Amino acid sequence: MYNQLRQEVLQANKALKKHELIIFSWGNVSGIDRENGVFAIKPSGVAYDELTADKIVIVDLDGNVVDGELKPSSDTATHLELYQHFENIGGICHTHSTYATMWAQAQKEIPCYGTTHADHYYGTIPVTNSMDEESIASDYEKNTGTYIINRFKNIEPLDMPAVLVANHGPFTWGESARAAVKNAVVLEEVAEMALGSKLINPNLKSIDRNLLDKHFLRKHGKNAYYGQD
Amino acid sequence: MYNQLRQEVLQANKALKKHELIIFSWGNVSGIDRENGVFAIKPSGVAYDELTADKIVIVDLDGNVVDGELKPSSDTATHLELYQHFENIGGICHTHSTYATMWAQAQKEIPCYGTTHADHYYGTIPVTNSMDEESIASDYEKNTGTYIINRFKNIEPLDMPAVLVANHGPFTWGESARAAVKNAVVLEEVAEMALGSKLINPNLKSIDRNLLDKHFLRKHGKNAYYGQD
Amino acid sequence: MYNQLRQEVLQANKALKKHELIIFSWGNVSGIDRENGVFAIKPSGVAYDELTADKIVIVDLDGNVVDGELKPSSDTATHLELYQHFENIGGICHTHSTYATMWAQAQKEIPCYGTTHADHYYGTIPVTNSMDEESIASDYEKNTGTYIINRFKNIEPLDMPAVLVANHGPFTWGESARAAVKNAVVLEEVAEMALGSKLINPNLKSIDRNLLDKHFLRKHGKNAYYGQD
Amino acid sequence: MYNQLRQEVLQANKALKKHELIIFSWGNVSGIDRENGVFAIKPSGVAYDELTADKIVIVDLDGNVVDGELKPSSDTATHLELYQHFENIGGICHTHSTYATMWAQAQKEIPCYGTTHADHYYGTIPVTNSMDEESIASDYEKNTGTYIINRFKNIEPLDMPAVLVANHGPFTWGESARAAVKNAVVLEEVAEMALGSKLINPNLKSIDRNLLDKHFLRKHGKNAYYGQD
Repeated sequence: MYNQLRQEVLQANKALKKHELIIFSWGNVSGIDRENGVFAIKPSGVAYDELTADKIVIVDLDGNVVDGELKPSSDTATHLELYQHFENIGGICHTHSTYATMWAQAQKEIPCYGTTHADHYYGTIPVTNSMDEESIASDYEKNTGTYIINRFKNIEPLDMPAVLVANHGPFTWGESARAAVKNAVVLEEVAEMALGSKLINPNLKSIDRNLLDKHFLRKHGKNAYYGQD
Repeated sequence: MYNQLRQEVLQANKALKKHELIIFSWGNVSGIDRENGVFAIKPSGVAYDELTADKIVIVDLDGNVVDGELKPSSDTATHLELYQHFENIGGICHTHSTYATMWAQAQKEIPCYGTTHADHYYGTIPVTNSMDEESIASDYEKNTGTYIINRFKNIEPLDMPAVLVANHGPFTWGESARAAVKNAVVLEEVAEMALGSKLINPNLKSIDRNLLDKHFLRKHGKNAYYGQD
Repeated sequence: MYNQLRQEVLQANKALKKHELIIFSWGNVSGIDRENGVFAIKPSGVAYDELTADKIVIVDLDGNVVDGELKPSSDTATHLELYQHFENIGGICHTHSTYATMWAQAQKEIPCYGTTHADHYYGTIPVTNSMDEESIASDYEKNTGTYIINRFKNIEPLDMPAVLVANHGPFTWGESARAAVKNAVVLEEVAEMALGSKLINPNLKSIDRNLLDKHFLRKHGKNAYYGQD
Repeated sequence: MYNQLRQEVLQANKALKKHELIIFSWGNVSGIDRENGVFAIKPSGVAYDELTADKIVIVDLDGNVVDGELKPSSDTATHLELYQHFENIGGICHTHSTYATMWAQAQKEIPCYGTTHADHYYGTIPVTNSMDEESIASDYEKNTGTYIINRFKNIEPLDMPAVLVANHGPFTWGESARAAVKNAVVLEEVAEMALGSKLINPNLKSIDRNLLDKHFLRKHGKNAYYGQD
């Protein structure tokens, strides 16, 4: 019944390994079927080489496993929180990819230093606040989602499909599980470029608003003209 | 009719992936047939793995597609502008390769710190000015070309087959599409080395003129003695 | 008789190459059979491609070779010292992996900058003191172990399965040879991330104790809930 | 007649590509047969994939090609100069490997920051002086060798089988062509580690003399005890 969703989420998880964003069993990707009110997610602690479609876990929007033998990712409550509040996203990806994690650990937003960034993220990539003791002590994974949502109060999730969780690492999302992974790959590239640009020119500022608009809107929205569509 | 040109441009585009200068559908390479007044270029938004010769688009020097089913690269107008003004170049390559883009984003020229650089680029690798609001608002891609040409007023394009477009990334060129890609590979290497040298010795200056001359002219021009020719 | 132990240690050594932690014959992994009072270790100076199970050397806890034709690793006395004092470890791994060695050479501990680190190491990764002249002059490899043990006076080895030997490189350990290698892979990743985070934010401090506790204890000890067990 | 020498030098050149020290036709390795007074060297400008034993050029100690159809490496005169003055070396390797070239461009010696370095190079890796105008203008490649030799007046070549040519890149050597390549691989690793250690601890000094002696002499000379010999 959930076969197609499982396949999509399996392929998206496998793509994390292909793009060298993860090692061992780190990271996780999910995809949602909003019509049926369920999402599919990687099982906890399973290595990517051993991942098969039947191991993907199906979870409903109350957080209950409705299909699958294994425990879902330990980050499932974060995914759930994001699906409930970001109503137009279709997939979520979490990694500890090297350069994005450097910025998350440093608790520094990634300024938009160039068009590679502007093509995909509509401005500065935000960092969440550091979590307080109480939020860590109980419902930690759910609260991780809450901190993300609070940071996005004035940001449209599909205009900024990435966040750096302070002291932790990136979450990305998109219209599908596959798009979420693509945004994770681009984020890693953008994070590496931003570190290098900062080392070359420590006083560097974000690009001008009109160049940001030009590039983001060249690829997104009703006036987009990139690609074959 | 354009079969050979398409094959050359296909192979040059595929080489971008082999040399790990691009991910997804980023970047584009073109090659020109000056006799017939057309150039061949990568289609917009097509992944490199799916690229075949028949998908390469043929464009004339008024910017019209004269053969091919797909839309040409969104950067086609930049290529056209360069072909019109740099009359002895045969191919153009645009990437967002990591280290070259770091320098472009930082809006810093790459000084000639050593002979790897001097073997291929006859001096400091220039950066364009940041584009003004009007140039971004209309004919953005054509104007990108114009900014490059303005920066090259006193520079011979084949002596300096690379430029960093400010806030964006590198364009390279050469006598053929293949040579343009080779210059993109070397630029990426030179950009990485330059960042490292600057970190080791923040006060580093360009090499002396006579060492620059020796290395560039050892490989280029009528007294060249490198290689088998 | 030692066939299974040799196989485990062989696979663990081969994994060093797969994870690109070593070049040539650098590094070595061992695993102990505490019941029989022996450990198996890589032979000295043998390249990983040429390593086979029968070349793995069996050493007793007095440091004598009890089975095998080859000389054991030149670091055998360090392994022996650690097995004698860290009674609950089952395997040891030594590499000169690039980023971990940068920190060891710099004689700087790796602060816990994020949850990737906290998931695996319960706090700051320690550096040994630099060895004094006498400790270098005689029994150098045994004394390397002694310096590690002295540094761990108030640290539980399985809570902190890694150390940076000053001016040298990392040793890691775990419940098995395989776990020791996994800790070496994670250490290298954590060391790279820490350098990047420090470059982005030179004033960065370790994460709070409660976040450290949350992540380490989520994966270790009786209340762990990560994975399928 | 020169078949074995050609094979050794071919394999050593191919190893440069395997170890990712070169791109395109950059770099060159040679090996000498002192009994017959000839050395074998890579031809100029030939890509590594196209290199075969019969393309390797045989040169005598007056610099004349004595066997082979192709022009020898443009750096042949440098190799010749080194063979004439470093009488116990059997092979030479020149690359523009990324990290070693960063240091050469920065005109900074690589201090001995740790045991990885000390295992292979007996102290600080030297940089030549920058070449003067006259030395560049005529016999440039021969003079490159002379600058190296002048820098080694008080250094035993096999104790320090590497040099950084200022503004240019590394030359390494050893008892054979293969050993010269191994020293180039290790140098690249050491150069990368040194940059990282310097970034982590800008005030870092070389290791103490007794640790340097311990590690270098553990692997070299009559009291060596590393490996199976």
